[in-house]
This record gives sequence, C-alpha cells and structure tokens, in this order.
Amino acid sequence: MNSFGRIFKVEIFGESHGESVGVIVGGCPPGIELCEDDFMTDLTKRQPGQKGTTKRIEKDIPHIKSGVFNMRSTGSPIMIEFYNENRESGDYEQFKTKPRPGQADFAADKKFKGFNDYRGGGHFSGRLTVGLVAAGVIAKKILKDIEIKTRILEIGGSQNYQDKLNEAISEGDTLGGIIECFVCNVPIGLGEPFFDSIESVISHLVFSIPSVKGIEFGKGFESAGMKGSEYNDTLLDLSGRTKTNNCGGITGGLSNGNQIIFRAALRPPSSILKSQMTINAVTGKEEELSVKGRHDVCAALRARIIIESVTAAGICDLLLINRIYGLK
Amino acid sequence: MNSFGRIFKVEIFGESHGESVGVIVGGCPPGIELCEDDFMTDLTKRQPGQKGTTKRIEKDIPHIKSGVFNMRSTGSPIMIEFYNENRESGDYEQFKTKPRPGQADFAADKKFKGFNDYRGGGHFSGRLTVGLVAAGVIAKKILKDIEIKTRILEIGGSQNYQDKLNEAISEGDTLGGIIECFVCNVPIGLGEPFFDSIESVISHLVFSIPSVKGIEFGKGFESAGMKGSEYNDTLLDLSGRTKTNNCGGITGGLSNGNQIIFRAALRPPSSILKSQMTINAVTGKEEELSVKGRHDVCAALRARIIIESVTAAGICDLLLINRIYGLK
Amino acid sequence: MNSFGRIFKVEIFGESHGESVGVIVGGCPPGIELCEDDFMTDLTKRQPGQKGTTKRIEKDIPHIKSGVFNMRSTGSPIMIEFYNENRESGDYEQFKTKPRPGQADFAADKKFKGFNDYRGGGHFSGRLTVGLVAAGVIAKKILKDIEIKTRILEIGGSQNYQDKLNEAISEGDTLGGIIECFVCNVPIGLGEPFFDSIESVISHLVFSIPSVKGIEFGKGFESAGMKGSEYNDTLLDLSGRTKTNNCGGITGGLSNGNQIIFRAALRPPSSILKSQMTINAVTGKEEELSVKGRHDVCAALRARIIIESVTAAGICDLLLINRIYGLK
Amino acid sequence: MNSFGRIFKVEIFGESHGESVGVIVGGCPPGIELCEDDFMTDLTKRQPGQKGTTKRIEKDIPHIKSGVFNMRSTGSPIMIEFYNENRESGDYEQFKTKPRPGQADFAADKKFKGFNDYRGGGHFSGRLTVGLVAAGVIAKKILKDIEIKTRILEIGGSQNYQDKLNEAISEGDTLGGIIECFVCNVPIGLGEPFFDSIESVISHLVFSIPSVKGIEFGKGFESAGMKGSEYNDTLLDLSGRTKTNNCGGITGGLSNGNQIIFRAALRPPSSILKSQMTINAVTGKEEELSVKGRHDVCAALRARIIIESVTAAGICDLLLINRIYGLK
Repeated sequence: MNSFGRIFKVEIFGESHGESVGVIVGGCPPGIELCEDDFMTDLTKRQPGQKGTTKRIEKDIPHIKSGVFNMRSTGSPIMIEFYNENRESGDYEQFKTKPRPGQADFAADKKFKGFNDYRGGGHFSGRLTVGLVAAGVIAKKILKDIEIKTRILEIGGSQNYQDKLNEAISEGDTLGGIIECFVCNVPIGLGEPFFDSIESVISHLVFSIPSVKGIEFGKGFESAGMKGSEYNDTLLDLSGRTKTNNCGGITGGLSNGNQIIFRAALRPPSSILKSQMTINAVTGKEEELSVKGRHDVCAALRARIIIESVTAAGICDLLLINRIYGLK
Repeated sequence: MNSFGRIFKVEIFGESHGESVGVIVGGCPPGIELCEDDFMTDLTKRQPGQKGTTKRIEKDIPHIKSGVFNMRSTGSPIMIEFYNENRESGDYEQFKTKPRPGQADFAADKKFKGFNDYRGGGHFSGRLTVGLVAAGVIAKKILKDIEIKTRILEIGGSQNYQDKLNEAISEGDTLGGIIECFVCNVPIGLGEPFFDSIESVISHLVFSIPSVKGIEFGKGFESAGMKGSEYNDTLLDLSGRTKTNNCGGITGGLSNGNQIIFRAALRPPSSILKSQMTINAVTGKEEELSVKGRHDVCAALRARIIIESVTAAGICDLLLINRIYGLK
Repeated sequence: MNSFGRIFKVEIFGESHGESVGVIVGGCPPGIELCEDDFMTDLTKRQPGQKGTTKRIEKDIPHIKSGVFNMRSTGSPIMIEFYNENRESGDYEQFKTKPRPGQADFAADKKFKGFNDYRGGGHFSGRLTVGLVAAGVIAKKILKDIEIKTRILEIGGSQNYQDKLNEAISEGDTLGGIIECFVCNVPIGLGEPFFDSIESVISHLVFSIPSVKGIEFGKGFESAGMKGSEYNDTLLDLSGRTKTNNCGGITGGLSNGNQIIFRAALRPPSSILKSQMTINAVTGKEEELSVKGRHDVCAALRARIIIESVTAAGICDLLLINRIYGLK
Repeated sequence: MNSFGRIFKVEIFGESHGESVGVIVGGCPPGIELCEDDFMTDLTKRQPGQKGTTKRIEKDIPHIKSGVFNMRSTGSPIMIEFYNENRESGDYEQFKTKPRPGQADFAADKKFKGFNDYRGGGHFSGRLTVGLVAAGVIAKKILKDIEIKTRILEIGGSQNYQDKLNEAISEGDTLGGIIECFVCNVPIGLGEPFFDSIESVISHLVFSIPSVKGIEFGKGFESAGMKGSEYNDTLLDLSGRTKTNNCGGITGGLSNGNQIIFRAALRPPSSILKSQMTINAVTGKEEELSVKGRHDVCAALRARIIIESVTAAGICDLLLINRIYGLK
C-alpha cells in the first residue's frame, strides 16, 4: 500500500534501524539530468544540526542504484538507497513493553500482530522521510519553473520562537509548529475534479509526514467565518490573476494561475525526556517513562524540506497527468 | 482519474445538467443486504429544504442498476444512478463568457480546452456528491458497529448561527462553516504507515467535497501551540483507551482504539446574488455579475452527510485492507 | 477489481438479466468527437443474426449518460449504458442446482458464497462485452490512424468452416475457433519493459473475453521450434521495418514499427443442446442436462469485434502513457 | 508503470550493467518466516551452469534490505537487492550503432529518446528476472499448500532435445522451447470476472518474461478445433473435480478446484554468434553482426523457475484478494 502517485509514483522502503532506507520513483520521463550531488542541498536541509534537532546524525549519502545512466534519467524506475550507519538499537527495547504515548508503537503492534520492527519506530520512523526528499529532488527537476518555498510561521504558538525552543530544551519537553508553503508559477488547470483535487493530492501527501495534524489552503479555517462577498477572489485579467488569493490558488480543485498557498500544523514530538506515564504492555500496570533517545524538540525545524518535497511530488504527478490531455 | 480506494473503490460520473449522475462501487463483499430504500435516509439528509439551502429540488431516487440480486450485494460492481430531472440550463449560459469568481469555470475551461460541460459546474458540480452519499450507505453496511457522526460547530464564525444565516439570506450573500466528525468503535490498527495513514485517506476524500479548504485531526492547529508533555495522550489500559484524545484517535497514521475526531472548514459558496465583479472571457473587460441561480447560502448545512459518507468509504477501504493481514 | 488501464481506464458493470449493462471510460482526453451513432457500426458487428449465433436479440442502443457535451468528450468519465430488454430468467433457474459443465456457475457460487446473480451467467455473461465494444469505439477515435483488423482463421479446426457449422447446429453441439488480429500503423515504442509489455497488456485484455484459452504473438508457438537465425527479423531501414515479422511487431515488449499480429484461440461454447452429464448441487447425484437457452454455436463469429475493441483499449492506454514521456 | 498486483505488489528495478537489480514486494502479510537462505534454492535454479546457458555467472546473493525482522515479514515493503558483480560493458557498445535483430535495442532507443541504458539490454535485460524469482519465493510462502511445478515439453521442436541443443551450440545458433506449468491444490474461486480472470493475471505476468510469445490454458489452441460435447469437463462430485481437465482448471476466469495447467512458448534468443545482418543506426547502411556476448542458447532452460515464480505471485495476489470476501 506504500506508494503514491498515478504516473510519478513514489514508493518508500526501509526501517529506522534496518540496513537501509530508500525510495523507488517510477514514471520519471527520460533525459532528466540527475546525479548524486543534485540531492545534497535538499538532504542537508533535512539533516539535524541546528539547536532543537536530534543528535542522531546520519550522513544521508544517496546511492542511485537504477534508472540513471550517463547522468540522466533513463525512463526506468529510479531506486535511491541510503544506508543506515548510526544504529543504536539498545535504546528502543524498552518500548516493546512500554509503548510511548503518542507513538505508533501500541497500534502497530496490534496491526502487525507483534511482527513489526519496533526499533526506533521501524517503518513508521521519520527516518523514512529521507526517501521523500530524494523523490522531491527528482520532481523539482521535472517541474522546472514551478517553485516551492516554505517558512516557519510559528513554534509553540509563538512567532519569535527562539526563547520557546530554549525553554523546551531545558525542560526536556517538545513543541509543535506551523509551516506555510507556497507554490509559484503553477500553470492553470492542474488537478482533477473530485478525487484528485489539488487539495486532495497535497493533503494526502502532507499527512504522510509524521506529526502533521492539520492542513488548510488559502484562508482555510478563517474562510469558515467569512461571507462570500468577502471571500470571492475577483479576476483581474484573463491570465487568471485575482485581486485577492483567499482560495490559495485553487478553485474547484484546480490550480487557477495564482500562487498555491497552504499551511500545515505539526503536533509536538511525543518522545520527551520529561517523565510521563504509560501502561506496561505485559503487566497492564501504570509505569513511568522517560524517553532518552536522540529526538527533535520540534519537528517543524526539519520538516520544511519534507513538505516542499512531497508537494513537488504531488504537483509533478498532476503535471504529467495533464500531458495526457495534450497540455504542456 | 476519478476514483478512490484500493479495495472499496468509489467512482463517480455525471454532470449537473446531463442526463444522470451516479456512482460505481467496486470491492463490496457479497451478501450485504441492500435495497433502494436503504439509501433514502442519507439521501434525504443531503437534500435541500431547510432555510439557507438551494431551491433546486431533485427527488434523488437511487436506481440500483447492477451488483445487487435478491436484495443482497453479489460481489460484482454496484452501479447506482440518479436521473437529473430538474435541469434549467438557461441560467448558466452567461458563465461561459463571465466566469464566476471562486468557481472552477475559468480553470476548467483552460484544462479541458473549452470542451468541458460548463452548465451548472458540469462534472465539478456539488450535484455529484449524491453518488458519494450512496457509496457511504454501502460502506456503513460493511462497517457495522463503527459509527460516524457529525455536527455543525459554527457558521459564519458563530456558534448560534441562525441570525447570521438570516442576515446572509437578506443580503444575497453566503457563509462558510465548520463541521466536526466523530468515528466511534474503530478497531485498533486501521491505516497504513506513510501514504495511507488514516489522516491521508480521510483528508483526500474530504477535500474531494467542494468548498472544503481545511481539515484538522484531534487538536489539529491548536496542537501546534502545545508542548509534548501537554499533548501526549496517556494510555489508561491495554484496550488502547487514553486519558485525553488530543491526537484524535490516530497515532502514526493508525487508529489507536479511541474515537477518531476531525474538523473540516468550508468556505462560503461563491455563487452570490449580491453583485460582484468579474472579467468577460471574450472581451477581457471588467463586468458586473449577479448569480441568480438556485444556490445554498452555506454548504455546511447539507455537507454533514457528505462528510460522513466519504469518511465511511475511507474507513471501509482500510478495514477491508486489514482483512488481508488476517485481521477482522 | 473490475477495471483495466493505467490512464485510459475501462470499467464494466451489469448482469445478463439485470436492468442494464454498461461501461465507464476514464482518461479520455477532451475534444474527441462522439455521439451515439458512432457506436452503431461496431455494436452491430457484435450482434447475433448470422447462422450459428444466439437467438437472444438485444437492440444494444447505447445511452451516453456522462462525459460528452455538444457531441465531444469533455474530459470527465464517459458512462454508456445499455438497457437489458430481452430478459427471460426462467431458463436459468435449473443451473442453480445443476451447474453447467464448462461455465462459471459452480466456481462463482463458491466464490461469492451463493450470493452471485446466477441468471444467464450474471456478471460473467458474454452480454457484458457490449461495454467492451463501446470502450473500443472511444479508443479507436483516439488512435486515429492506428487501424485494428481481424479475421477468422478457422472454426472447428477447418478453414472452410461452413459445413462444420451446419453439422454442429444439427447435432446441437458447439465449436471452437481461432481469430487473427492485426494492428497497423503503430508508432515505435508503445509498451513498457516487463509488466506492461504489449503482449502483457493485450493478453490480459483478450483473456478477459469469455472462451479465450490461448494467445500467441507473431510466430507464437511455432517460434518455439525455430532457430534464432531463422526467427530473427532483419531490419530493412531506420524506419524499423523488418524483412520478416516473426515477432509480430513486438520486441522487448515494445512496438517496433511493424504490424502487431496475434491469434486468439476460443474454446467451444459450453452451453450445448446435446445431452450431457453433471452433478446435482443439492443431491450430489449425477444427472442429465440439456441446455435449451439461446446460445452461440461458435463464439468466434461474434468475438472478432470484441477482440478488436479490447486491443484498441490496450493500445490506446499505452499511447496515452507515451505522451507522458513527451512522445506523440 | 513497472509494478504488478493489486495487493501482493511486485516492482522490479535495475539494469543489466548498473550497480544492482532487485525487487520491492508490497502487501506481504506480517509473520511470514523469511531469511536470505530461503531464496537460494530457487535462485540457483535460475542460474546458468548447465550446457546451453550463458557464461555470465552472477552469484545472485539476495540482500534483504527491509520488511523482515527477526526472520519474519513485518508487514512493510520487502526490498531485496542483488549487486551486479560481473559487469563487462565493453561488449555492448556496438549495439548502440548496430541494433540487434529481435532485441529491444532499436525500439527502446526511440521510446526513451536515446537516454535508455543500452548496456546488455539495460532495464530490458533478463537479469531483472532475478527479482521476479525473489518475489516468487515470498509468494510461495503465503501460498502454503498450493504447489507450482513446471517441465520442459520441447526445445527446438523436439522432445528429446539434447542433440538439438548440441547442434545449435556448435552452429552458434539458438533455440526456442515450450514450458508447461501446473498449479496444484488451488482453492475454488480464485480470480475475478473479466479483467482479473486467472488467465488474464497469469498471462500478463508470463508475457513479462523476455522471450515468451505464446500462452495457452488447458487444451488451449487445440480446443479451437473441438466440439463442446468433447471439450466440456463433466463434474465428478461436489468438490469440483471433473472427469477431464480440458479447461486447465479455470472456468469463467475462476479456479474450479482442478489443477491449473498452462503452456508458454519461448522464441529462440536473438543474440546469436552466427553472423546476421542489421542496419547501422548512424549510416543507415546494412552491416554484418555477430553477437559475441555471453548468452543462453535456449531461454527455456532457465525460464522454468521464472514462470513458476510469476505464477506464484499472481496466484498469491488473487488469494489475498479473496480474503477480502471473507474467504480463506
């Protein structure tokens, strides 16, 4: 079930503490320039390093195993693998018996009848997002002029979030945040009515990113309090440009020629150093838990590039679908 | 492109002012009791009638054309058709030259190179949601004890929205609203890691509904301002029940045994009687437009059952997928 | 499960003695000229009438219910419905207890736990192929210059099959046959390596047609007895033309610029007037059975257009996929 | 496009002379015992070694990179990689200008606009079938009692083929062959009406194997010359067993409880040492070509296990689909 896309197909594999993680990208047209260096800028953006991010450092060296020849895509599936080098499984054995609140541990154990790889979240780990970033790099090459940007709107409810972050670090606590994303130079008419509306495709992908609990396009939740006469975006000319952009560049599920804008809300990471209570899976008794692993204080710090990447993948898929209609 | 679901597949067809609209549901197991009467309760909920809803009344009689024999599903595709009886195409001819702000008219014309059926929004029309409701009825039969409920949280920014509605009606204006949805008695372990997380599947479907511009699960956007120690839901016992339900019943993309909770934000309908400006698609000049059609003042009034229906379809698909793993 | 195609998607619905049968075609580009008359030539080819074909006559009037506006495709799903007018269910009640040898009756009853519509084969009926023919008509409009032709190679093992047919009719027996299909003017490079080879796509579709039990491309089974030096098709020039066409126009799963050629073997229809033995599903005892329904003496007589139609659908899908690569 | 299966999904990647080839298998239920040793028996069957097979020896060591933990499947995608160790690209540079008759070289160059990896057939190479064998091993573990066997019926038109093989080797020529496959202990009711008939699914997969040009089920092409009264398989009892098995265990596209039987025809390999003519892709002039690479004399010698493997994958997919219907 682990794939997305009708044409530009992204499939990820791997576990946090397995041998490797990676991605297979199908449907990439032939002739796209591509080499391992092309991935480094985006991969670096996903890496920890700044204050508030995990101390597990993986070099994240992409190994292109297929689909590229003479530094160009061949048209066959592109497999990119990242070896897991920094594996410390010992930390995680306790979660087998003491499921971490807010993590997949408990539900995954039930779903997979105890056979899932529980070390570091296994296949549910944020580590898997490295494959999403790699897919995004390829997508962006196909998107050419279509540009995708993000910014952090707030962390811990605060726009000036540096103090909040320091406070959370010193308390052994974590914080949520909001990321805003812009897609510029989008041609008119991407997206399909109903099931493949742009909102459907982007939200599907953005909710694939661990920690995301909300998404809104254009004015989003604010628009629920507006009148039609306030909300409607008036056309300025036949290029499709509108006076306002309350709809976030999407009408009827289709791109309308204006900037696509959306915001994603990320909950605070559930792995906190601070002591919390859970239930022992064996004894059924309440127990104290302090998660000592190497974790992010706020997912928003590293999630920007991941949101950009999955957005690129989704928009790329819709763009390739439009070629079928004879559109560029 | 117009289908959704891996196993329980929903595909809708039709245009607002074409001969009929409908749905094909694939993947329904054999032996489910089903007759045309079963659809009436939900279809009635979608119908206009109360103050603030459109005056276009369609009887919405479901015609089961296939997949049902002796009042039970046979295991083959179920096609349900609704004839369009109340078609008044005259109203819509003007939108060919004067695209309505906030509607798909302009973008659809570009995407489909002018060949789309523009009458009443054509295939983009809310009329198509009648098929979604029919699919939901079938899904709910498969879901058995899993119950899906909704309520209107607010309209026009107000919880006591009756005055707001009256005001908008008298002004020839429209209003947005927020709907909250609950899914009860969900077994643990529905959903797949990453691309088929419950949030991904439900948001994909809910954003298929015209007017939806935002969705949040559990505490959603509020969680972005919380600390991990506040947000984490503590396990109460090994049934999976938690003290709080900030995550809205979903951890790691999987159902965790608690109620699934989400809220959808609907923008105000763009068809307003009140005069607004647009650009003439032929002359390129600014022109006044007053949409005199029969339209809803607030989509939230009729969208509750549609949100319930697509949620049922999505949860049903994930439930059937779990059977593959040998789960009930 | 009942759909085929990545882009040009064909989904059929209905039962032999239900209200209607039909097809939904997705992925048809907008602007294709299409009206109900366009279907009549091919539908007539599928109709009985000549000696050796069933006496159940259905008018086969296509009702285009969606996806066409002003006599052109709109880009949204095209639903075409055929009402079942000539239903005589009485004939079939006996097969509930006496499964017909060679028919799906027995296996379908087990698969669908007795809930399948057993009247006239239900969803397994050859009646469903009317939807395949309709899909083929649309596909051929997209294929433009690509031409698909068939001929009957033999019936009952004989090239001059008229006597064989008369003999079978007088004996209350049935006959198998072989149909050969040619696809002309195919551009080079249709098909995908491995899973979507042209052979894979065409065979998948051709085996969807009831009665087909074998398929071979180019020299097919004869090639198994050949040497490479005999079999290899030598290039004549850079247009791709080859001296011989032993591979049937397909190398490495891709079209190579020569005519695509394949042959399909159809077993004799299993419904014979002649007395045969079966097992009573209730008593488990051996019983005599004479199938008195209105049946074809040889499926090959009416299957030519069905083979052409599904071939058109498959080639059309591969053609649209190639547009993604930037090919025409 | 390079995947197959609705539930049990097989996706292959890699090129003949790239870094590695491999497979991702999705939809494998959790808890299946699996380790690298499990693959060796089948991989060895695919390896060259006996007379008439290529001298390119790859060790074919499977590296399970994901989806397996504590020697059991976890329920997440299983990625298995095979490093290419024995790469000699030099041999293949000539085929860039001199396309080999009968190979994908010429058509692939056109399809992928010259960007395909042409070394050793690239992604079209038989080397990729190692991933199919790996997928088959996993499928067979899920199939449990369902057993799949093959035998070589003939090579070069001869049942006693040893002399034919020796002759072809000494002449620098190649030979075609026919393989017969049996699937035993198949439960009744696998397969879906029309598009996912067992014949459709198996033929789709078998034609994915390079060199296959024909397939027939049960009596296949012979049945085209039979009468219904000869062909019909009479039920012996309510277990579904029939007196004859002319339909090869499949009625109406569904398994009927008898052995599934089919035969696949393989054309002779096109890479022959013997001199043949081709067209120079640059000059357009006729030129002599002798393919000196390390090639098989007859594909049938190594293809048996590949046919068994893809058959296992297809049957496994249909078996898992049946679980949705509540069948075992």
